[in-house]
Amino acid sequence: MRRFKPVRFTAVRVEGGFWRERLDTVLTRTIPSQYRQLQENGILDSLQIPQPPPPLRIPVGEHGISTQVFWDSDVGKWIEAASYALSHRRDATIEDRIERITDALERAQRPDGYLNCWYIDREFDRRWTNLRDRHELYCAGHLLEGAIAYWQATGQRRLLDVLERYVDHIAATFGRGPNQRRGYCGHQEIELALIKLYHATGNRKRLELASYFIDERGSAPPHYFDVEATARGDDPAKYWFGNYEYNQSHRPVREQNKVVGHAVRAMYMYTAMADLAADLGDPALQRACETLWRDVTQRRMYVTAGLGPAASNEGFTRDFDLPNDTAYAETCAAVALIFWAQRMLNLDCDRAYADVLELSLYNGALSGLSRDGTHYFYQNPLESDGSHTRWKWHPCPCCTMNVARLVASVSGYFYSTGDNLVAAHIYGESRAELTIGNLPVVLRQQTDYPWSGLVALTVETAKPLSFKLRLRIPGWARTHRITVNGSPLTTSLVRGYAEIDRTWNGGDRVELELPMPVERIYAHPQVRADVGRVGLKRGPLVYCVEQIDNPDADVGLLRLPRRASLGTKMREDLYDGIVTVVADGEAAHPQPDAEVLYRPDPFATAQTQLVAVPYYSWNNRGPNRMQVWITES
Amino acid sequence: MRRFKPVRFTAVRVEGGFWRERLDTVLTRTIPSQYRQLQENGILDSLQIPQPPPPLRIPVGEHGISTQVFWDSDVGKWIEAASYALSHRRDATIEDRIERITDALERAQRPDGYLNCWYIDREFDRRWTNLRDRHELYCAGHLLEGAIAYWQATGQRRLLDVLERYVDHIAATFGRGPNQRRGYCGHQEIELALIKLYHATGNRKRLELASYFIDERGSAPPHYFDVEATARGDDPAKYWFGNYEYNQSHRPVREQNKVVGHAVRAMYMYTAMADLAADLGDPALQRACETLWRDVTQRRMYVTAGLGPAASNEGFTRDFDLPNDTAYAETCAAVALIFWAQRMLNLDCDRAYADVLELSLYNGALSGLSRDGTHYFYQNPLESDGSHTRWKWHPCPCCTMNVARLVASVSGYFYSTGDNLVAAHIYGESRAELTIGNLPVVLRQQTDYPWSGLVALTVETAKPLSFKLRLRIPGWARTHRITVNGSPLTTSLVRGYAEIDRTWNGGDRVELELPMPVERIYAHPQVRADVGRVGLKRGPLVYCVEQIDNPDADVGLLRLPRRASLGTKMREDLYDGIVTVVADGEAAHPQPDAEVLYRPDPFATAQTQLVAVPYYSWNNRGPNRMQVWITES
Repeated sequence: MRRFKPVRFTAVRVEGGFWRERLDTVLTRTIPSQYRQLQENGILDSLQIPQPPPPLRIPVGEHGISTQVFWDSDVGKWIEAASYALSHRRDATIEDRIERITDALERAQRPDGYLNCWYIDREFDRRWTNLRDRHELYCAGHLLEGAIAYWQATGQRRLLDVLERYVDHIAATFGRGPNQRRGYCGHQEIELALIKLYHATGNRKRLELASYFIDERGSAPPHYFDVEATARGDDPAKYWFGNYEYNQSHRPVREQNKVVGHAVRAMYMYTAMADLAADLGDPALQRACETLWRDVTQRRMYVTAGLGPAASNEGFTRDFDLPNDTAYAETCAAVALIFWAQRMLNLDCDRAYADVLELSLYNGALSGLSRDGTHYFYQNPLESDGSHTRWKWHPCPCCTMNVARLVASVSGYFYSTGDNLVAAHIYGESRAELTIGNLPVVLRQQTDYPWSGLVALTVETAKPLSFKLRLRIPGWARTHRITVNGSPLTTSLVRGYAEIDRTWNGGDRVELELPMPVERIYAHPQVRADVGRVGLKRGPLVYCVEQIDNPDADVGLLRLPRRASLGTKMREDLYDGIVTVVADGEAAHPQPDAEVLYRPDPFATAQTQLVAVPYYSWNNRGPNRMQVWITES
Repeated sequence: MRRFKPVRFTAVRVEGGFWRERLDTVLTRTIPSQYRQLQENGILDSLQIPQPPPPLRIPVGEHGISTQVFWDSDVGKWIEAASYALSHRRDATIEDRIERITDALERAQRPDGYLNCWYIDREFDRRWTNLRDRHELYCAGHLLEGAIAYWQATGQRRLLDVLERYVDHIAATFGRGPNQRRGYCGHQEIELALIKLYHATGNRKRLELASYFIDERGSAPPHYFDVEATARGDDPAKYWFGNYEYNQSHRPVREQNKVVGHAVRAMYMYTAMADLAADLGDPALQRACETLWRDVTQRRMYVTAGLGPAASNEGFTRDFDLPNDTAYAETCAAVALIFWAQRMLNLDCDRAYADVLELSLYNGALSGLSRDGTHYFYQNPLESDGSHTRWKWHPCPCCTMNVARLVASVSGYFYSTGDNLVAAHIYGESRAELTIGNLPVVLRQQTDYPWSGLVALTVETAKPLSFKLRLRIPGWARTHRITVNGSPLTTSLVRGYAEIDRTWNGGDRVELELPMPVERIYAHPQVRADVGRVGLKRGPLVYCVEQIDNPDADVGLLRLPRRASLGTKMREDLYDGIVTVVADGEAAHPQPDAEVLYRPDPFATAQTQLVAVPYYSWNNRGPNRMQVWITES
């Protein structure tokens, strides 16, 4: 049913440039170090269930949410990221580790297929009694995503077999049948994983189960989370969060038109909804997705594509409530927004989705991973007094593996194919092996993107082949220029994509030029935190001022005059070489005699140079004050 | 030892104008309604202790701080405010109520003089075991202030006798003697009250006890709050607040140079310190006060004189941390800043102190009381989304009686006398009966202050009399003009006061003109919350934009151009008539087609009239969005 289908990352080799460095870092440093962290933090040990499993022991209180209940998911996400690494190059050590994990899971699995190590080890009799809080189906989803990825990378099916048995158990347990529970998970994720399983195996029952979970969600009365709370002996009115917006079960998903609650839960759900809309050809579900997309991107998204201002619910609050210094903007939510955007591209090849995908990729998501590949941001504020620093690990390590699996599969976001059509969404040095009309075509990109907006695409085909090549003209590009074999091409845009419909010969070369001047950016005036402030962008990159580059004044005192010209400087000495933004700025400073807090004339300013660096790169030179939105003078 | 002495409010009759209306409201509406609230909320009943008192019952947990432990203080503050009302005009009903309270307190008092109704009623055996948290001495202080005021208003000494017996008990219990406890209260207040008692009775032992409490505070090791916690069986390291900055006992008071912790506690302590510095002629203590004064006024005070940005400690955080919408700025803290400022004026007749006194009086303190005199702000934010509203009562009603006692005695802040000198600090329609060199002099002020800066002072004296008249030239006045009997007078300023040293005849008339243009005001650039924003002031009044006066745009979208001219409009229809500020402003509004959160060009603005009202008056026309700091364009 899908009109557009992403090209898997395994078919798009990142040959150099920006993403090669990030990819190498993740493959060689991040994934191995994460395995060590799983070991050192007892997460791998938690899979080793005594045989036979003990009766009820060490239960946590009904409302106690130990991060340990998520541990299966951390293992699953690591397997997924590690398997993506294996798709790049096989590695006996990693494969052996995954086999040993498979051994443990196989041993732990109950005869009926049930497989949640926390419950099996501690309170097996209470399984499936608290879907609202305990993440059982969420953990199942991540293990399943890991198993699919491992199978796809290596052909080893044993782990997937274990998980398929678990999915069979889940399918038997949940549904609208007479002896089934009409439940769904408090943290969406299983839905995504089931849809992946359907795509991987073609078993449509998996898709139907995902569809059940999505459509059952929020139906009432009675509300399932009320029913199960009462069955546990709990008072549903005493739900610790207060209302079901937190997990987006406050109403049926098709009736939802505001992006609310926990940001990661929301993004995973919308991803599954968009997938189902495409796979089932369900226009009502597509419309719900489109409404929610407009809501988040027009009212509730940081300029970095970070999502969720509040720590209290790790999520959304009110329209235009986007504080900078207290921004939660969890790495996982930015990663999940990329998942959702990609699913929206499956429905409609519209640059609105790819623009946000790119924005998150280069900013709100990528900021979560340190330069060295072994430190992380869980929260991604847009302003810091210097106290925000990267973690080596986190009690809730979800973000660490999320950014790893994103980068390890980054080239999977580059292209989609459609009916006799290939669309390029994200530009990067790469070699893609595509199949168009059953014929193989290679598309090679040569580019220094995102530092430069010049992209050369070369088509390699054994014989002439007609297909449409769509090139995304990013929303940030004020102009663009395209040549085909050196001849300028003028073409109108199809939903933001330049479409070149021709018969391609081997060696045909398309050059795309996207001018990348540094631009000021302004926030909607209802965003109180950004009033009177200006941001800096160049191409897809949001910039920020970091204290270390601006030694003359506290970054909070920097002012950027409305008419100051904005320049760039290539800094080969920073990281692998980055483009910095430089401007003649000002620094506010009180007069020497002004020991006053308030005065009738503005405080004086002095000239100073203002240096900005890409937001994703900040906090890799020690703790630092930082600001994305700079006061305009 | 005092160089300057405030003239008591009983000698300064407010004859009309701004303060007459507030005073009448407090006398006729606030004080009676507060008595009803004390009744309805069980606070008066709490004084009725069964005889004999019960053994230990209904104890609260060691860390449970019920607002009920403060109830004696609420009664004391009401007695104080009500007694100030009696000083204006006797009232048999009020006096009877205070007599009945006296009956109850007399009955409750233990044979050794102890008198805390909470402890007597519930856990008498635990008295004096938790000075850190339980407010025993604080409650004693407020009852004592009430008793002094009642005695001064009516000559009735029975309540004061009860309290003096309690003070004797306290003096026997605390001190550096062999069988005494070396304690002091977790919430400063008793010190102030003891100094008042010394001034009222001349008993120097009261001053010495206050001096002990101040100087013992924070001495260590061992720290008294550690000692008493251990004695109770508590772990001192588990102090619920974490550190003793909260109650300013983190170090000896003379070594304190940063204003920290709970704002009201801090202000009460500095008030007592300044009092002691004057009464004991203690320059070291004076210097400590001066250092703390500079710290708070130069780094930690809102433009309204509100104090304490944070709800978490009801107090101070970091230098320049002055958020507007989440400002705590407790009414009590602004009232207490007035107390402190007045005590600083006793040390030095410097307008720096009177400027802040006036600022708080007309803004951060006065905002705490509604127009109708029966609703209150506990917190006084400088920006509101419309959700901040006035309380009819508060679980912790401290602010209600604090603002009542302030207004009921407001004319006590108008004048000080010194050696053959009278200084006018605060201007207002009034008739003051002063004694200068043992001779009676009447000073009459005719003025429409704060709406106009014209003040006419007439001297009434039976025979010619030489003395210095100091008139405060407020820091906000860029120029001023003085005439004596119509002749212009040029005089240099003595610490911000114009001093007229002459032989005065009856009928001599001084006219002071303080031009009151509307002024812009800017915050120190380190105050991040106010960057790019401008405030409006006229004379002592800080203005704000309230939604109801600006119907065309959300007040958050209003912009005030840097060069817009600022006008005034007398609005007779608002309250008793107030001066509003009007300006040609702008309102930011997105282009009709701009359904975008971020864009490369600034969002458009439209012309609009901007109307501002005095900050103290806001929220008297229903819930309203409000903003003090307006974005400058």
